[in-house]
Amino acid sequence: MVIEEARAAAFGAVRSLTEALAAPLSPEDQTVQSMPDTSPTKWHRAHTTWFFEEFVLGDFAPGYAAFDPAYSYLFNSYYEAVGPRYPRPGRGLVSRPGAAEIARYRDAVDAAMVELIDTPAGSKAAGLIELGLHHEQQHQELLLMDIKHVLSRNPLDPAYLDQAAPLPGTTCPVEWIPHDGGLVEIGHDGDGFAFDNEYPRHAEYLAPFALASRPVTCGEWAAFIADGGYERAELWLSDGRAAVVAEGWEAPLYWDRDGAGTWTVFTLGGRRPAADDEPVCHVSYYEADAFARWRGARLPTEAEWEHAVAGAGPFRRRFELDGLHPIAPRGPRLADSVGEVWEWTVSAYSPYPGFRPAAGAVGEYNGKFMINQQVLRGGACVTPPDHARPTYRNFFPPSARWPFTGVRLARDL
Amino acid sequence: MVIEEARAAAFGAVRSLTEALAAPLSPEDQTVQSMPDTSPTKWHRAHTTWFFEEFVLGDFAPGYAAFDPAYSYLFNSYYEAVGPRYPRPGRGLVSRPGAAEIARYRDAVDAAMVELIDTPAGSKAAGLIELGLHHEQQHQELLLMDIKHVLSRNPLDPAYLDQAAPLPGTTCPVEWIPHDGGLVEIGHDGDGFAFDNEYPRHAEYLAPFALASRPVTCGEWAAFIADGGYERAELWLSDGRAAVVAEGWEAPLYWDRDGAGTWTVFTLGGRRPAADDEPVCHVSYYEADAFARWRGARLPTEAEWEHAVAGAGPFRRRFELDGLHPIAPRGPRLADSVGEVWEWTVSAYSPYPGFRPAAGAVGEYNGKFMINQQVLRGGACVTPPDHARPTYRNFFPPSARWPFTGVRLARDL
Amino acid sequence: MVIEEARAAAFGAVRSLTEALAAPLSPEDQTVQSMPDTSPTKWHRAHTTWFFEEFVLGDFAPGYAAFDPAYSYLFNSYYEAVGPRYPRPGRGLVSRPGAAEIARYRDAVDAAMVELIDTPAGSKAAGLIELGLHHEQQHQELLLMDIKHVLSRNPLDPAYLDQAAPLPGTTCPVEWIPHDGGLVEIGHDGDGFAFDNEYPRHAEYLAPFALASRPVTCGEWAAFIADGGYERAELWLSDGRAAVVAEGWEAPLYWDRDGAGTWTVFTLGGRRPAADDEPVCHVSYYEADAFARWRGARLPTEAEWEHAVAGAGPFRRRFELDGLHPIAPRGPRLADSVGEVWEWTVSAYSPYPGFRPAAGAVGEYNGKFMINQQVLRGGACVTPPDHARPTYRNFFPPSARWPFTGVRLARDL
Amino acid sequence: MVIEEARAAAFGAVRSLTEALAAPLSPEDQTVQSMPDTSPTKWHRAHTTWFFEEFVLGDFAPGYAAFDPAYSYLFNSYYEAVGPRYPRPGRGLVSRPGAAEIARYRDAVDAAMVELIDTPAGSKAAGLIELGLHHEQQHQELLLMDIKHVLSRNPLDPAYLDQAAPLPGTTCPVEWIPHDGGLVEIGHDGDGFAFDNEYPRHAEYLAPFALASRPVTCGEWAAFIADGGYERAELWLSDGRAAVVAEGWEAPLYWDRDGAGTWTVFTLGGRRPAADDEPVCHVSYYEADAFARWRGARLPTEAEWEHAVAGAGPFRRRFELDGLHPIAPRGPRLADSVGEVWEWTVSAYSPYPGFRPAAGAVGEYNGKFMINQQVLRGGACVTPPDHARPTYRNFFPPSARWPFTGVRLARDL
Repeated sequence: MVIEEARAAAFGAVRSLTEALAAPLSPEDQTVQSMPDTSPTKWHRAHTTWFFEEFVLGDFAPGYAAFDPAYSYLFNSYYEAVGPRYPRPGRGLVSRPGAAEIARYRDAVDAAMVELIDTPAGSKAAGLIELGLHHEQQHQELLLMDIKHVLSRNPLDPAYLDQAAPLPGTTCPVEWIPHDGGLVEIGHDGDGFAFDNEYPRHAEYLAPFALASRPVTCGEWAAFIADGGYERAELWLSDGRAAVVAEGWEAPLYWDRDGAGTWTVFTLGGRRPAADDEPVCHVSYYEADAFARWRGARLPTEAEWEHAVAGAGPFRRRFELDGLHPIAPRGPRLADSVGEVWEWTVSAYSPYPGFRPAAGAVGEYNGKFMINQQVLRGGACVTPPDHARPTYRNFFPPSARWPFTGVRLARDL
Repeated sequence: MVIEEARAAAFGAVRSLTEALAAPLSPEDQTVQSMPDTSPTKWHRAHTTWFFEEFVLGDFAPGYAAFDPAYSYLFNSYYEAVGPRYPRPGRGLVSRPGAAEIARYRDAVDAAMVELIDTPAGSKAAGLIELGLHHEQQHQELLLMDIKHVLSRNPLDPAYLDQAAPLPGTTCPVEWIPHDGGLVEIGHDGDGFAFDNEYPRHAEYLAPFALASRPVTCGEWAAFIADGGYERAELWLSDGRAAVVAEGWEAPLYWDRDGAGTWTVFTLGGRRPAADDEPVCHVSYYEADAFARWRGARLPTEAEWEHAVAGAGPFRRRFELDGLHPIAPRGPRLADSVGEVWEWTVSAYSPYPGFRPAAGAVGEYNGKFMINQQVLRGGACVTPPDHARPTYRNFFPPSARWPFTGVRLARDL
Repeated sequence: MVIEEARAAAFGAVRSLTEALAAPLSPEDQTVQSMPDTSPTKWHRAHTTWFFEEFVLGDFAPGYAAFDPAYSYLFNSYYEAVGPRYPRPGRGLVSRPGAAEIARYRDAVDAAMVELIDTPAGSKAAGLIELGLHHEQQHQELLLMDIKHVLSRNPLDPAYLDQAAPLPGTTCPVEWIPHDGGLVEIGHDGDGFAFDNEYPRHAEYLAPFALASRPVTCGEWAAFIADGGYERAELWLSDGRAAVVAEGWEAPLYWDRDGAGTWTVFTLGGRRPAADDEPVCHVSYYEADAFARWRGARLPTEAEWEHAVAGAGPFRRRFELDGLHPIAPRGPRLADSVGEVWEWTVSAYSPYPGFRPAAGAVGEYNGKFMINQQVLRGGACVTPPDHARPTYRNFFPPSARWPFTGVRLARDL
Repeated sequence: MVIEEARAAAFGAVRSLTEALAAPLSPEDQTVQSMPDTSPTKWHRAHTTWFFEEFVLGDFAPGYAAFDPAYSYLFNSYYEAVGPRYPRPGRGLVSRPGAAEIARYRDAVDAAMVELIDTPAGSKAAGLIELGLHHEQQHQELLLMDIKHVLSRNPLDPAYLDQAAPLPGTTCPVEWIPHDGGLVEIGHDGDGFAFDNEYPRHAEYLAPFALASRPVTCGEWAAFIADGGYERAELWLSDGRAAVVAEGWEAPLYWDRDGAGTWTVFTLGGRRPAADDEPVCHVSYYEADAFARWRGARLPTEAEWEHAVAGAGPFRRRFELDGLHPIAPRGPRLADSVGEVWEWTVSAYSPYPGFRPAAGAVGEYNGKFMINQQVLRGGACVTPPDHARPTYRNFFPPSARWPFTGVRLARDL
């Protein structure tokens, strides 16, 4: 049947991309966990597989026998309703199953899934399968973020992949795109897939505001540093100042000066000079906020952001295996620069009015993280194709720097 | 002049209350810092004095010579613009100046202030003096919160003061007070004093909701515990669950079971059985949120709370030196129970649209804390008289339990 | 009876000295615990009292009723056999009982003790009473060490007492006093009081060695610093190097440079310039060991030290309330300089061959600490009179710097 | 030439054994660092190779070019004189060079070494080469200790190798072998290789003592546990008690109860029941000391141990790749049981009288660790053949449990 074939194709496409992303990595690379926040590549490959085994095959494929009963303990991430799980900070201590065994695990689950999809039970499970694929896409981005952090801890600065050189910079001055505000609607309208945290669509009242036409660039960030940005306490939130001192931050994560004093950035293609026109990336909320104060501007709310972007017309997102680093805007329109770096908003990650978590264990997917995090919008160069949308709510703690996070400024009008 | 006399009287009233609150405490009591979040009593007495010396006398009283130049370093809390300061976690290590010397410091500054108030320069400083008095009122509440924590660490359970026994409980069933929502205004309108974080008054759009007529009681909380509330992971935010496990929480702070298994509470009057009808107090945001989920309800937003309370007519707040513990509501109306415990809201502490911090060093007062905190509303039995108002935005991290924090539930309609 | 009178007098003398040492300290001073290793003054005053109550009055005074039953929990230091105890790191959190209440506690126990001493039961308890007095003398020294640390944390550098200026330095060149070694005996012979860890007297074989005639001076230490002593990894034990880096050590504890770059020392009389000829004090074992390596020498073993000092003839120790800081040697003989600073030895604190701890709970006094500590010998200017002797084994972890610790060098011959 | 051939053969034998020990391990296994004390297998393989490159080829092979100049930074362990080094706790974060690349590194260095050995320069370097081989043997044992710890952190309890089942237990009652003591000599006499810390041979005086004929067994340890050994504070050193509480120790490392309550041990061959007669292994000094106190015995000094064992005649040590777990004694003589587990002594690791570290950077090999460690004697089933001898001084901190550590008791006579 046509629908099932489409489903099987979508399933295969997502599952294959995960393996393609892991392919350049050795078994050793896939084993390392560089900090409690990151996970080994082979864990991501296994966990995304476990998601289908636990939530789809276990409930919908009659007689399905787990590939290895111990995997439910090893590869559950945080689903309390499913049972106990191996502690997150220890994921890098588990050398077995190895990368090759996990490939066998993936193959076995894929085979069972493809068989299931083409059945009435598979149709019933279609919603969960779709969720599982979006879940896997999130882990594709995490895999890239995490392995970048792993490789960065190696003093040899090894590359994940040869990468295309950055495009020659197109210098775009910031333009402030004005919006009237008023009573607007944000949130997903139910047309196509969305996570539970994007619902319900609801009204918000906005004062008039302007949004920058493009993200802050590396060149601008270097000027902030040169102006003492990291030392001037008056620019920082109190917790931000404490983080600067405790962590010794002097520049974005992955920035370093070379022998001549030039700023370099570590990318998935290795270390190279920072290009003035490319968006700054790997800054915390604290840094984004301090930079905005330095510029006499502020960060947007998520409602301002969504309202502005949803009204900006369709935009094309980029995802290139040999270009996993943010690039300078293609032009002056909002749509020319959204999607290269996640953009911090001033909005704490909270439930929308009327929010209801999904039923069952997958209800733990989003809701239980609605504290101590800030919303980010837009997507990044490492976000898989078709995964981001204007209503998408990404979230990280304000101290996080290993995601591909950048800054778009806003102003009151 | 009448205005100056009124100012001097207001000044004297606030300053005297601080000393009255410290009076029951020995020099030893006043020296202890029980955790980095708390400060010694004698530090509060000195810091509030320093505030007037630094921000008022130093700028407005010509020829004023600092009581002791070292105090600017010792008693600055967090004003980066003023200069370096003694590290907060070490406040309990400084035995000198002692409690008596700090009394002399207060007397000297008070004398200079009273002299200043009655001059044209004093009139110019009137706004800062008013800020200083509201600042001191905040520290009066902190003094009580902090000394309660200090005394609670003593295995002898000593009392701050003999306290009146709790009033006989009046059992008030919860009523759900409905509100239509729509486009409403919140924030201070400039009539009377308010902190900068209460401005500007602005529009928010609210969906229909209901607010509980009274806070959650100790009896209801005991039922939550008995139903496994602290063990059931599905009720908790992820960070809340982690706090429960890491801190070993099994009940609100200051609760303990006596030999017979009855819940007791440590109060400023010592330890006694928890009364079923009194509001539960000293719970974190995490606990408040888990309780709400257990009851099929939620916490209100700060806009909902302010809209509902501002419309509920005038209410009387209580502040009795021999009754510094929350008491059961006097009746079924909202105004009969607001002001006994600070009420957690689901709103993260963020700037209002158009927020501008005050000019100068006092601009650090509020703005730089706008991250990682939740807003609380209403005031508590330890909040000084005339200090709270419906637009008041108190804030603490979601893990805080030593403030007098309680829970009022809300529901969607 | 004469013996009982002498006992009562000895008891009174020791007990009074404790109160005399505490007299210059305010209630606030007596409350602070500056780190887990130190204890508040009022705790020392109470704990030494509890020792008599628990080990003497409780067992030997029929019908004695505890002053306050809770004190056994509050003031037990580490005697597991006695029962549970309040955690050591929290001693500074307990403001009550206060300094005055503890004076009453001391008076009550003293009265009961004086009554007991003059009875047959008191004679039976004579050994435990003597132990209790030596125990209290140890705490007199701890009280001084600890309050020095407390006051040093205060940025105002307050003084415990006005102190006599250091004597004009007498420059004594080091002489190397030779010893043949061979089979020698060390340990206490049972004539007069000794702790259990000084027994049994036993044979040790020593190779020929020489011992320095005086301790290392501040002037020599300043030369060590100037020669890069704290930066040169090759001079340090591996754990010592790690401590230097982790703690940021650049000089002995309590040393600081003044505006002109001169080394100053914080003393119980306040801060003043370091005198070239006075013994260096407040150095860790790691620093002592590194200094010795820098000088091409080594630290002595405790057997070498005891053999040399026991053979050096009688020496006079100094203890002056207005001179609680080590002074330069009075002359070139060993006996002219022993007793100003505790002298680190290369010997780990281990049981002597045939060691047997004392019976009962007081057997916990010494034996259970025989790991992770180095032996120090000689006594310091803060060691009470009549408390030190050539066989005395003091001990601290190699990282300790707040005791009055110094360095005497040795060499192979 | 014959000598060179012998040297080349010895070199090849040691180097091959390292690779044979690593052969059962996957690249993932070889990457993991399970705690700061352990190192990844591939790091051990590289570091032992670096030792020859840095200390031999660099100085003695003219024109030798480093395989990769970055390796000096990556694979230096702790030689400060050589230059900066990658921080130890991060060894598990470095995925590249991988296991295969390190094999190439080993091959290249081996080829250069074999070429060098057969030259006059190689003869000059003979002492350093011999040191390098003994160094590599130490790392062979570390490799086995460390990978056992790594595999133990995996909830699947994976095996390093199939292992022969333990030999049927031979129940040997303890006999107390008496020794007269007196003036004895210990330390190496220079006949054959020894580390610098085994010199100089020197006199020690011993009181009469007895040494147990065999180590403590698992059966005896189970009785200790059953008698409340881990809960009875009076049996423990103070630091030991603190470790028990902080770490939650209830049994030796790698012990666990199965569903039926039987004690099991995790071995390099997987998990199996503990055999009553096999020596207990993986206990800390604290546990060894507490067990001795429970039995009314004590641990031997290193001088007692060496004197007794050196006089016991030649003994055969066992090293079997499929039997890397301690086995029950072959008979009642001392020589029938020494060498299965390292035996804790009461002696702190200190320099022998007259100790001089080796010249140059290799002088850091032993001397700088002479603090905070206890001496262990005898060797274990994972100690390579020909690596242990009666004068050998192994050392670990008293809290270490991941080495193959056991207990042999002593008594005063």
